[in-house]
Amino acid sequence: MRHMDDKNDTVCALATPGISSAISVIRVSGSKAISIVDSIFTPLSGPSLMAGKSRTMRLGTIKKGDSVIDEVLVALFNSPASYTGEDSAEIFCHGSTYIQKEILMLLFASGARQAAPGEFSMRAFLNGKMDLAQAEAVADLISSETSAAHRIAMQQMKGGFSRKLSEMRSELLNLVSLMELELDFSEEDVEFADRTRLRIMLDGVRTHIETLIDSFKLGNVIKNGVPVAIVGATNTGKSTLLNSILGEERAIVSDIHGTTRDFIEDVVNIDGTAFRFIDTAGIRKTEESIELIGIERTYEKIRKASVVMLMLDSEKEDSFRESIMKIADSPAFSDQILFILVNKTDSIEGGKAEMDRLCSVARSLSLESGLNPYVVMGISAKSDKGLKELKKALVSGQNLTFSGSDDLLVSNVRHHQALLLALEALNRVEDGMDNSIPTDLLTQDIRDALFHLGEIVGEINTEEILGNIFSKFCIGK
Amino acid sequence: MRHMDDKNDTVCALATPGISSAISVIRVSGSKAISIVDSIFTPLSGPSLMAGKSRTMRLGTIKKGDSVIDEVLVALFNSPASYTGEDSAEIFCHGSTYIQKEILMLLFASGARQAAPGEFSMRAFLNGKMDLAQAEAVADLISSETSAAHRIAMQQMKGGFSRKLSEMRSELLNLVSLMELELDFSEEDVEFADRTRLRIMLDGVRTHIETLIDSFKLGNVIKNGVPVAIVGATNTGKSTLLNSILGEERAIVSDIHGTTRDFIEDVVNIDGTAFRFIDTAGIRKTEESIELIGIERTYEKIRKASVVMLMLDSEKEDSFRESIMKIADSPAFSDQILFILVNKTDSIEGGKAEMDRLCSVARSLSLESGLNPYVVMGISAKSDKGLKELKKALVSGQNLTFSGSDDLLVSNVRHHQALLLALEALNRVEDGMDNSIPTDLLTQDIRDALFHLGEIVGEINTEEILGNIFSKFCIGK
Repeated sequence: MRHMDDKNDTVCALATPGISSAISVIRVSGSKAISIVDSIFTPLSGPSLMAGKSRTMRLGTIKKGDSVIDEVLVALFNSPASYTGEDSAEIFCHGSTYIQKEILMLLFASGARQAAPGEFSMRAFLNGKMDLAQAEAVADLISSETSAAHRIAMQQMKGGFSRKLSEMRSELLNLVSLMELELDFSEEDVEFADRTRLRIMLDGVRTHIETLIDSFKLGNVIKNGVPVAIVGATNTGKSTLLNSILGEERAIVSDIHGTTRDFIEDVVNIDGTAFRFIDTAGIRKTEESIELIGIERTYEKIRKASVVMLMLDSEKEDSFRESIMKIADSPAFSDQILFILVNKTDSIEGGKAEMDRLCSVARSLSLESGLNPYVVMGISAKSDKGLKELKKALVSGQNLTFSGSDDLLVSNVRHHQALLLALEALNRVEDGMDNSIPTDLLTQDIRDALFHLGEIVGEINTEEILGNIFSKFCIGK
Repeated sequence: MRHMDDKNDTVCALATPGISSAISVIRVSGSKAISIVDSIFTPLSGPSLMAGKSRTMRLGTIKKGDSVIDEVLVALFNSPASYTGEDSAEIFCHGSTYIQKEILMLLFASGARQAAPGEFSMRAFLNGKMDLAQAEAVADLISSETSAAHRIAMQQMKGGFSRKLSEMRSELLNLVSLMELELDFSEEDVEFADRTRLRIMLDGVRTHIETLIDSFKLGNVIKNGVPVAIVGATNTGKSTLLNSILGEERAIVSDIHGTTRDFIEDVVNIDGTAFRFIDTAGIRKTEESIELIGIERTYEKIRKASVVMLMLDSEKEDSFRESIMKIADSPAFSDQILFILVNKTDSIEGGKAEMDRLCSVARSLSLESGLNPYVVMGISAKSDKGLKELKKALVSGQNLTFSGSDDLLVSNVRHHQALLLALEALNRVEDGMDNSIPTDLLTQDIRDALFHLGEIVGEINTEEILGNIFSKFCIGK
């Protein structure tokens, strides 16, 4: 990985979006950061930047030859009291795309190189300013769009999760020491007492890890949004509903800034909870392979969803049974929250009474098929009728037991995987104890668990791991 | 206008785009700026912000109740050494949309209000930090995307244009004094000598104003891009050509940040010159009114264009004459630079020789019709063939005699209009002199010219003028 080799270089990057706005910020960090900025900066008054005090701002101009590129403010941060821990400077310029580009070009010409995504945060990690879990939380914090996602990221950034891991690791180290003590005294008959005590300690750590693993489902949903799959036959109004829900609340798509989502779906913030809506192709029974792929994709979306919304067409009562059966028979549907929406209430003859009857029919058919819908309601996707109630039901359907800032939630796939591996190792230790496996083999498994917990905070890391993590950051962070 | 009444309020706004990025900047300005930020900010160490020194940065947290919204840096600027001239603070937070919103809400709750677009710059103007032409240049600087546009804006922001205006105004004031002196001595026979001298002074100022007025055509083109209208019959490949030219060089659309363009066209930066491409409907002769509107729109686009690109289909040689005649007959076409592009070279049989023949036919037909095309060339809009040569010709076709930073160019419509009015007033003075109009009426016309020149720098202003100017700024500036 290039930037690992070059960690003594001075790097620079735009830290604000590369579009025009009142102000843009360009970050420079590395041993030559201040001298490089000094070489292109003419202060309005006073001595050169090199003589400036840390955490002060200087007004001046940035010149390219004789022509002024911009009047800017430069903020100085002397090592180690900077984000990266290195000497750093931040240039606050007018937010013109031309000026952004010109200043970066001048910095390149003066010896700085373009920072890789996340390189400032990686340097902060490598310089001991934060551990790996904290650095990852910075990226989560930046992409947080709801209060809950923000809270998880903030807690992780401030080290709450790291402290919990550190506690568990010292418990396990304690355990290893005791077991190695047992090895030293293996001549004497101390085993039985120790094993019971060890078992209690081990169970304690295991429970903590299991709690963290369990929290991932909620943490992930909070971070990425509750996945909602909209399904139903063609022309039942799935896309219309999606568009109505998105309305003006459509989330700002954050893909351009290198956040972690691999594909874009439509995320809507409803009462502080993010919902990720996934439109699906209609499910049709067919033997044609291309259709089967479509079905498999729909199943995959249903499988990943927390909420499944089945759309029924109020004008086609005779199709209700088939649509409902398809969900009931689907191998992908298990314990998701089911919404049954009888659409097109506007065009229905017979008004509310008829709609109530159709909803009741849909509910009976569901129960017959072994489904227990959370909600069966009439809506008009086209005229937004019932949309408010639907949103309310969506929020109330989420039993998001995230009580507050004291709850530790795991929201990072990498952390979740490391915790699973740590748990596996501890399970091997317990099995080993049950089967009287030699103590030195047991300690090896505990060290394995320690390794995986250490990976989370970055005490154990490889260039590959760091590369994977930081390449997902946005530029300038 | 609301913000004129409230100029003692403390205002705040996001100064970076409202999308996620590494850093966001929130500006706060007004007499209570520092105390308001202080009320939501807990410094990591040291005294409160109120005791902080100007142009220093403080690290700390912003809290909402007990929960930390973000760890931020706050920069302090004490009056008058700030952008607005007022006490100001800038908050540098993590660039999450959630955090941006929360911090703004906390500032509102603490007594700041949302700044109107351009309100920071308007306050800078009202506090005498810059004149009106300089404030307008700030907006131009931010939206500048080419080197030339940047240079005009920078020169204007640094006061080059204002100094020129100031020179002309003191000349005119001098003139008025002399004329009023003549009035005082009207008994004596001093008129003849004075008039000659006055005439020379007047002509000097008039020449300067005329030069500035003449520079507007170039200044406007540099600021907004050279307008290029692409015309031709349907299916000649107009849209394909436009897409090929735009390619990956498509300018970042800056409408979301309240720049001055009223409608979005496609701007491409070719070798440092911005070209604004305008696709048109085909011109067809018809009596139907709806078609006439289309034609009138096309004429309007041709009228406003500096370059007209006529597309001909190489497969339809027999349509060349009609297409060329339409341009020649168009009341909208006068001295624009004409490009004739024979499209679809790819599908032509006979290769280069045949293409040369077709180009030669098109040129002959043009000359017969009284047109003198700058370029007649074969291209393939579809396969990008000839595109490089076309771009070269576009740049060379622009006789942009903008020699450097010493040239004063007027690029602002408001300034142009004020200069025209000033010139009109001075013309009235000259006419008056020729017709021996009484001196006191002549001085009235000179004062009229002074009024219009004063409007440019804002010495004469109304709330309406200010409202019009600053409402076009982006938020946070």
